[in-house]
Amino acid sequence: MSDTPFRQVTIVGLGLLGGSIGHAVQAFLPGTTVVGWDADAGVRAQAAELGLAHRIAESAETAAQGSDLVIFCVPVGAMDAAARAIAPGLSKDALVSDVGSSKETVAAALAEALPGHHVIPAHPVAGTERSGPDAGFATLFRNRWCIVTPPADADPALSARLVAFWEALGARVETMDAAHHDKVLAVTSHLPHLIAYTIVGTASDLEQVTQSEVIKYSAGGFRDFTRIAASDPTMWRDVFLSNKDAVLEMLQRFTEDLTELQKAIRKGDGDVLFDHFTRTRAIRRGIIEMGQDDARPDFGRSDHNGAKESAG
Amino acid sequence: MSDTPFRQVTIVGLGLLGGSIGHAVQAFLPGTTVVGWDADAGVRAQAAELGLAHRIAESAETAAQGSDLVIFCVPVGAMDAAARAIAPGLSKDALVSDVGSSKETVAAALAEALPGHHVIPAHPVAGTERSGPDAGFATLFRNRWCIVTPPADADPALSARLVAFWEALGARVETMDAAHHDKVLAVTSHLPHLIAYTIVGTASDLEQVTQSEVIKYSAGGFRDFTRIAASDPTMWRDVFLSNKDAVLEMLQRFTEDLTELQKAIRKGDGDVLFDHFTRTRAIRRGIIEMGQDDARPDFGRSDHNGAKESAG
Repeated sequence: MSDTPFRQVTIVGLGLLGGSIGHAVQAFLPGTTVVGWDADAGVRAQAAELGLAHRIAESAETAAQGSDLVIFCVPVGAMDAAARAIAPGLSKDALVSDVGSSKETVAAALAEALPGHHVIPAHPVAGTERSGPDAGFATLFRNRWCIVTPPADADPALSARLVAFWEALGARVETMDAAHHDKVLAVTSHLPHLIAYTIVGTASDLEQVTQSEVIKYSAGGFRDFTRIAASDPTMWRDVFLSNKDAVLEMLQRFTEDLTELQKAIRKGDGDVLFDHFTRTRAIRRGIIEMGQDDARPDFGRSDHNGAKESAG
Repeated sequence: MSDTPFRQVTIVGLGLLGGSIGHAVQAFLPGTTVVGWDADAGVRAQAAELGLAHRIAESAETAAQGSDLVIFCVPVGAMDAAARAIAPGLSKDALVSDVGSSKETVAAALAEALPGHHVIPAHPVAGTERSGPDAGFATLFRNRWCIVTPPADADPALSARLVAFWEALGARVETMDAAHHDKVLAVTSHLPHLIAYTIVGTASDLEQVTQSEVIKYSAGGFRDFTRIAASDPTMWRDVFLSNKDAVLEMLQRFTEDLTELQKAIRKGDGDVLFDHFTRTRAIRRGIIEMGQDDARPDFGRSDHNGAKESAG
């Protein structure tokens, strides 16, 4: 595999993910030219100033011109419109990919909007609670997983180049089919976000406990939820709508389990609670053993390090 | 206020909290003698080795002898037995306190077990996912809130000494009544823990997604829940049983809110989702503005710093 799997990449959508790809390609793939495009003129101007790309395209129609890789970094619900907008400049040989958090819907939307083109969706499991062009940075993908979901008829050579691209940006790449991706992410990401958004909303609606008390004593556990619930609202609205079936299925299971614990609390059945709480420790141990959460300073970004106590 | 609000403190229960108090008193209140006691002989031996106290008492009956402060650092459900065990050695002038996460039940249990004694419960909102005598450290309480809940008939001078004690250990102290404490903590701590325990259990029971996949892709949001759900099972069982009414009330509200979002997903109502997700960002901003979560290196402990990305 060559050091520059793609000669020129167009990034469509210059928020946290798109901006980070722009920084990362310039930092780690010096042989690749980066072209940026965003439907929002203000974002384009900001991106130019921030140097997120070698150049910002002058129009959607020309954005994909000359690129052998086009990555859509827009909310899942905006993929279709973005694909149609850049279609006129898109070469038949170019590879089309994306960074969306749900994959079956995106794969279908891109394939329909760009018939006859090569589409291999991907999902870098990376992000922060910040959003916007100025939130991006070159090392966002370092040591993070990127899941590539090639359709059954995808060209293996193109898949391999996409894998090489993400590896060059520092990611660890896994390949799976889109439907399985959507189930895995429904439980590891989408359901946790839905729960976090819910509980933060519940807390802000209380009458007997003030919002400032909620904030003040948030270190008791609530704080971790607020971090998750600060993610980009548009992105997450689209994730839930596009991965509806898997999310609703996981939610159904979660609700059943919660009802069981609720019943145990109401009945004062300490054994049920104790057994459940003991069982969940095993998963945590697995995460620590797999190095998915540790104190290595370069695992996270130093400017985002912080306390992670959980206090009663 | 003197530099040593208490001449001798007995710590009953030498786990994470008790051990940390032992370290902290020795570090920050050099004029105070620390006596340790734990019902478990193995823990007593370990505590002696770790130097959690100046001396480990030889029996429960003598543990409180000569102390003007006795702090119970045992699970909420074990307060009663621990109080009765040390009662023989307890002076009528000594102040009795604790570190439990629910306060109305504890206040009642201690008052009943130790009639005629001064009882002022407290709750340092601090902890880590680790437990046991070797998990403690002197700076656990630094810049963390400690909520003191004096009963209506408490001696104000004793309250003031307890406040001074916690401030000397680095905590920021607030005073409120026990019932209000229990409502505040039900939402900022107990409900988040219950939710986290639930979702981690749900994830580990799936058939279509393997446990190793859940662990591998946990950076998408799930990881933060596992950290919370790794807390001590005995402690948390007791918290839910002892703060049952407040927890069930918060849980009821949470379930209503979750049902609303579930319905929005099922109906494909993006506006409801977007509005909700936008609203929850305000709480997060409040937490950052109040300095309850930031990048100052001394806010958390350096050995527990780590990544806090939330990734889709």
